[in-house]
Amino acid sequence: MIPSNGKRLYIQEVAVRDGFQIEPKFIPTAQKIELVNRLSRTGLAKIEVTSFVSPKAIPALADAESVMRGIDRVPGVVYAALVPNVRGCERALACGVDEVNLVMSASDSHGRANLRMTPEQSLASFADIVKITAGTEVAVNVALSTAFGCPFDGDVPPSRVLEFVDRYGELGIGGVSLCDTTGMANPAQVAALCEAVRARAPGLQITAHFHNTRGMGLANALAAVGAGIDRFDASLGGLGGCPFAPGATGNVCTEDLVHMFQQMGYDTGVDLDKLLAIARGLPEIVDHDVPGQVMKAGPADRRYPLPASVRA
Amino acid sequence: MIPSNGKRLYIQEVAVRDGFQIEPKFIPTAQKIELVNRLSRTGLAKIEVTSFVSPKAIPALADAESVMRGIDRVPGVVYAALVPNVRGCERALACGVDEVNLVMSASDSHGRANLRMTPEQSLASFADIVKITAGTEVAVNVALSTAFGCPFDGDVPPSRVLEFVDRYGELGIGGVSLCDTTGMANPAQVAALCEAVRARAPGLQITAHFHNTRGMGLANALAAVGAGIDRFDASLGGLGGCPFAPGATGNVCTEDLVHMFQQMGYDTGVDLDKLLAIARGLPEIVDHDVPGQVMKAGPADRRYPLPASVRA
Repeated sequence: MIPSNGKRLYIQEVAVRDGFQIEPKFIPTAQKIELVNRLSRTGLAKIEVTSFVSPKAIPALADAESVMRGIDRVPGVVYAALVPNVRGCERALACGVDEVNLVMSASDSHGRANLRMTPEQSLASFADIVKITAGTEVAVNVALSTAFGCPFDGDVPPSRVLEFVDRYGELGIGGVSLCDTTGMANPAQVAALCEAVRARAPGLQITAHFHNTRGMGLANALAAVGAGIDRFDASLGGLGGCPFAPGATGNVCTEDLVHMFQQMGYDTGVDLDKLLAIARGLPEIVDHDVPGQVMKAGPADRRYPLPASVRA
Repeated sequence: MIPSNGKRLYIQEVAVRDGFQIEPKFIPTAQKIELVNRLSRTGLAKIEVTSFVSPKAIPALADAESVMRGIDRVPGVVYAALVPNVRGCERALACGVDEVNLVMSASDSHGRANLRMTPEQSLASFADIVKITAGTEVAVNVALSTAFGCPFDGDVPPSRVLEFVDRYGELGIGGVSLCDTTGMANPAQVAALCEAVRARAPGLQITAHFHNTRGMGLANALAAVGAGIDRFDASLGGLGGCPFAPGATGNVCTEDLVHMFQQMGYDTGVDLDKLLAIARGLPEIVDHDVPGQVMKAGPADRRYPLPASVRA
């Protein structure tokens, strides 16, 4: 294993968007804003604040403008928003986002189910979006769904992912998130694909986005960091999933990911205690238990008193 | 990442002992026997069947003799039992176990709390046990608890683990399980300790025994396999924990571990479908939900039909 040597990793929070979008209960706008404001002060590198989709498509995020305009902007934190199309991008730019996160599927069927678009249609839309961000300071990232496999189509060839990466380069897009949308990736596959994408596009900012659907979320993150990836999406408490992927049970948990990397000696920039305090308030916000584990067990350096029977 | 190249790994099931021992409900003897019999036919390398402790100390396993004598013995499967002392070993030998699993703590306080013994007292007891197994075919393994850290004492120096490993060699003990009893290990630590123990005792059979208390179970298994470890304890459905470690939430889940390794191309020898079918019956046996994830989401190669709205 490559020693961490205090290497800096960048943790990007997606609970407020990727998590809340599938919550059955509408999270009040003020609660969303307060959560983003608290998360902003933990050392997270980026926060995906909301999604500028149609309120009809995702009612849970119908308050995108109010949230984006209502939050405090802490210097050094990148405030991103998902945009599905030109209209969404215009709305996001009007609210002063730092980054727009475009979305497409690496597999045809998932693209049809989730976006009603073929990959070529997505790429054409990206070209239009890039045009309207030109001349702004706004960064453009693409979240490439099903990069490690599709619940409908099965395997996604790495060559297909690399072709899309080439296209992003041609379009002048600066970042890609390799998304394991339904938790199909395994660590060997993660290491191979991350290494291949890094080799193909050395200037591209790469984010690893894992789900813990089959328990492999942290193992996949470990494989990614071993392959040189330094940016990770994660969701507070392990909230999230994918509405079109039955059986999916949540994104990698932010505080569990930060805890693992810190225990290994990486510099995540994150104050874990602050993050845990926020995570422990999450069940009350969403009205159900969440999968996060460190919030329940405490960090590994937690000490317990000896049982009284032994002390006596 | 080192390619798996179909390397053989050995999966050792501990749910019937490590899992059931802390269940509040007594699992009927016939159910234990049936479970072991079904597990015996999945390709698992070893099954820890029970513990020959005092029935007063662990009432859940008061039927150790009946279970051990009642199971079918499938050729090729090693049937092990935990033994805490000479008396327990005599009981285990009388039932014809293939292997006795001795137990000690790497840390003083955990040893006091869990066993009421110092490490030196444990080692003295091991010497007596080894004597009575001499001349039999019965293998001897030591489960070294808190090898990666103690919930009471904190860090456990690797040098301490290596000293114990030396002592096992002197005693003629053939195997050691490096146990992360309360889920404190991280992957960097796992890689380092596993490599150090392998280098120190090349002839020793080493098992990695992880808990998923802080979500790192599979990541730690990945680190261990990368360090050359080929034997893993795991618990069906992720049952288990440690009665003296508050906050601990379960062993690494057998079917999730097998699933990850198989997806990576390792040969676990295990029929995952059979294992999943057994795991799915576990909540009914123990009367509560269990942490296993693949039993809920299905394996990564599961395919879903496209939503009807998209097919139309």
